[in-house]
Amino acid sequence: MVFIPPPHDQNGTAASSSKDISHWVDYQIRIRYAETDQMGVVYYSNYLIWFEIGRSEYCRKQGFSYAEMEAQTESFLAVAEVSCRYHAPAHYDELVKIRTSIASLKKRALRFQYQILNKQNGILIATGSTTHVILNKNGSPKTLPEKYALLLRNPLSKNTGPRRHPWERRPDDPII
Amino acid sequence: MVFIPPPHDQNGTAASSSKDISHWVDYQIRIRYAETDQMGVVYYSNYLIWFEIGRSEYCRKQGFSYAEMEAQTESFLAVAEVSCRYHAPAHYDELVKIRTSIASLKKRALRFQYQILNKQNGILIATGSTTHVILNKNGSPKTLPEKYALLLRNPLSKNTGPRRHPWERRPDDPII
Amino acid sequence: MVFIPPPHDQNGTAASSSKDISHWVDYQIRIRYAETDQMGVVYYSNYLIWFEIGRSEYCRKQGFSYAEMEAQTESFLAVAEVSCRYHAPAHYDELVKIRTSIASLKKRALRFQYQILNKQNGILIATGSTTHVILNKNGSPKTLPEKYALLLRNPLSKNTGPRRHPWERRPDDPII
Amino acid sequence: MVFIPPPHDQNGTAASSSKDISHWVDYQIRIRYAETDQMGVVYYSNYLIWFEIGRSEYCRKQGFSYAEMEAQTESFLAVAEVSCRYHAPAHYDELVKIRTSIASLKKRALRFQYQILNKQNGILIATGSTTHVILNKNGSPKTLPEKYALLLRNPLSKNTGPRRHPWERRPDDPII
Repeated sequence: MVFIPPPHDQNGTAASSSKDISHWVDYQIRIRYAETDQMGVVYYSNYLIWFEIGRSEYCRKQGFSYAEMEAQTESFLAVAEVSCRYHAPAHYDELVKIRTSIASLKKRALRFQYQILNKQNGILIATGSTTHVILNKNGSPKTLPEKYALLLRNPLSKNTGPRRHPWERRPDDPII
Repeated sequence: MVFIPPPHDQNGTAASSSKDISHWVDYQIRIRYAETDQMGVVYYSNYLIWFEIGRSEYCRKQGFSYAEMEAQTESFLAVAEVSCRYHAPAHYDELVKIRTSIASLKKRALRFQYQILNKQNGILIATGSTTHVILNKNGSPKTLPEKYALLLRNPLSKNTGPRRHPWERRPDDPII
Repeated sequence: MVFIPPPHDQNGTAASSSKDISHWVDYQIRIRYAETDQMGVVYYSNYLIWFEIGRSEYCRKQGFSYAEMEAQTESFLAVAEVSCRYHAPAHYDELVKIRTSIASLKKRALRFQYQILNKQNGILIATGSTTHVILNKNGSPKTLPEKYALLLRNPLSKNTGPRRHPWERRPDDPII
Repeated sequence: MVFIPPPHDQNGTAASSSKDISHWVDYQIRIRYAETDQMGVVYYSNYLIWFEIGRSEYCRKQGFSYAEMEAQTESFLAVAEVSCRYHAPAHYDELVKIRTSIASLKKRALRFQYQILNKQNGILIATGSTTHVILNKNGSPKTLPEKYALLLRNPLSKNTGPRRHPWERRPDDPII
């Protein structure tokens, strides 16, 4: 089914409020034929798969592998809630930029937020968020191991430029 | 990834408020192996596919085929927004009940709401909603053809009770 | 992507030769919107998911749940090989009949064969087969537990006719 | 479900015989969580999606976009047949190399062959092939437009070496 841009706030998304604790990690994918439906656009559930890719790459950029965390500490980031707004359609073979950020991070829960953009023309395709709780192998809530909490909080893993702390804003930094 | 029951209101979901204009249509599916992930539970994006099945069956129960509407009137129910809360995990081979209802219906937009339950034990697995706009073949907004608006509004397609035509409104029918 | 009927033998499929050790078990599904692609037909990998549904239902008809077998005996029917021929396209909302049969059954391997038909007009949509080996939890080959081998071999689970126990073989039962 | 290495010929695959008309085009992907199933490995139908990615990238390497060919000439490479052998399991987050080659190319049909390898350790995960016919928008067979036939045949699009036009054949070029 197709998607259309619903009326939304001026800056296109509520995902980049100043309260964000984190930066954005970008990752690029190319849209698969399998991801389209008979409307000729990407089927709406596939965006949640892209969100998951964004989470994986966010972890990698922060210095650890989500796969390893799951295997070694038996800690699972279970999805408790998801929301997604579809702003513009996406098509087969287009390059898409998945932007991922952490919106909140607590001992037993965290929230990721996402922006999906068309890589070629910069158009915002979708925005969304996922709320997670940390579970052990048996499905009971647990605390996120400190090692990974620290890594996720690390503000220095920005894509470009020298490593800085978040409070070291430069005049030319984008206003967010 | 696994899902857990987030804290929620007493009755398990906000989906069945008295303001709902519609009844619920139930449909049963059996969970496929393909729908599981390495956590041993249903992967979180598959619930959106179940929602879509719910919409299709809701239309069928109201007396029309969504496939035919799309083909004959070139009207598409584009998804503008989705949200889903995961209350309990779902597993391979379990029977699942998809409950679908219309939360609001306007000329150019409508909203479905969903409840996903374990058929065997009645446990609430997930709740969610999708907001749609009606688009023509070129992706421009249009009005939902009157024929289908009437059919969707028809409160008489309830699982129980005699069938009536949409214009046979009764005094106690919900105002929409 | 779309599919076309390749030239094939007169009877449409090689799947129903007289050497088959088993009967066919039928199961019906309705095609999901999510299963279509931008050509307006079912994407070709989804047929393998339908094959898997066929296997599950074959087991159920033979008197056991594949899910239970996996959980209780830690025996997994790993796919070693698959082939599929696409004879005619399939579309959203069509009813499809999945026909499943066992082509061969050995101690450590078995082969299922499938026919996919349009339920409404009887047209043959696809044929295929999957070869499986039995693995334990660690991925090492093992023998299919005798209980399930017997149930799978049971020729009496035919859609018609009285139920018999697997050891109540009749003279005219196929030798396997 | 899991996969195991079935007994096969000495060189691991029949895909690289000397009769191949073409070279191999490589493309790398990272395995998604969504692609796993409850056995902890990649679900078997996802390999067909990887094959499709291989085809897309093969076309791109040969100098055209499959998406554009489909849109501009209304020529569709419909899948008529697929086969896949699963040699070793694949897991979440692993890097996978998709190797694609053309096995045969005729006016109205062509066949791709594939090798899937674990990028890190070089282990062969799967091999397969897809047979395609060329269809027009209405699903009738047609001839592959000459422009694209030439591009697909071009043996000079090898990863290394200078680019030449398709008619600049060299004595040592493979005969096709």
